[in-house]
Amino acid sequence: MPARLLGLYHKPKDAAEFDKHYREVHIPLAKKLPNVRKYTVSKAVAVPEGESPYYLVADVDWDDMDSLQKAFASPEGQAAQADLPVLATGGVTMLIYEYEEVPL
Amino acid sequence: MPARLLGLYHKPKDAAEFDKHYREVHIPLAKKLPNVRKYTVSKAVAVPEGESPYYLVADVDWDDMDSLQKAFASPEGQAAQADLPVLATGGVTMLIYEYEEVPL
Repeated sequence: MPARLLGLYHKPKDAAEFDKHYREVHIPLAKKLPNVRKYTVSKAVAVPEGESPYYLVADVDWDDMDSLQKAFASPEGQAAQADLPVLATGGVTMLIYEYEEVPL
Repeated sequence: MPARLLGLYHKPKDAAEFDKHYREVHIPLAKKLPNVRKYTVSKAVAVPEGESPYYLVADVDWDDMDSLQKAFASPEGQAAQADLPVLATGGVTMLIYEYEEVPL
C-alpha cells in the first residue's frame, strides 16, 4: 500500500524568508530522500470560510511504509528533518500514513 | 494547475461509527462530485512523535481550481458538505489549494 508523508506548515514568522528557504534549501533536501515516487507542494492554501490554519502543504509519496521509514532514517532523511526547525518558524505538523485510492 | 480538497478529520467521538459512516455514506457522496480525477483516503494516521492530531486524511483532486469550485457549488457538492456535520463528530479542517508536482 502506498505511504505518504504530509507536511502541514503553519504560517511562518516571515513568509518571504520561508518561501525562499523552502524553495532553495528544503526542496533540494527533500528531493534527495531515497525512493520518493511523487512530491507535491501547494500554492496558496485556503479554507471554505475564514483563515487557513496552514500556510503550505507538501506531500511526499513512497511505494510502501517500509520505504518511507527507511528514507526517514537515512542520512538524507536526517538532513531534511534537521532543516525543519530553521524552515518552519511557525511550526509544522508532519503526518505519516498509508493510503488507498478510491475507485471512481 | 491541479487543485485539491484536503480533509483533515479530527478524532471522532465514536471511531467505529465514523468508519462505517465514512465508508458507507461519505465515500459514495464524494465519488459523485463532478470531474474528480483522484480520491485517496488514509489508513491509520501517525506522527513521528506523540499522538496524531488527525484521525483520517482524504484528498480529492481536480484538474484545476475552477473545476473544484464548480464541484463544490454543485448539488453533489452541497450533499457531500451537508454530510460533514453528521460524519465529523470530532471536527474537520478542509483545505483547498492548487499544487505543483516537484520534478524528481
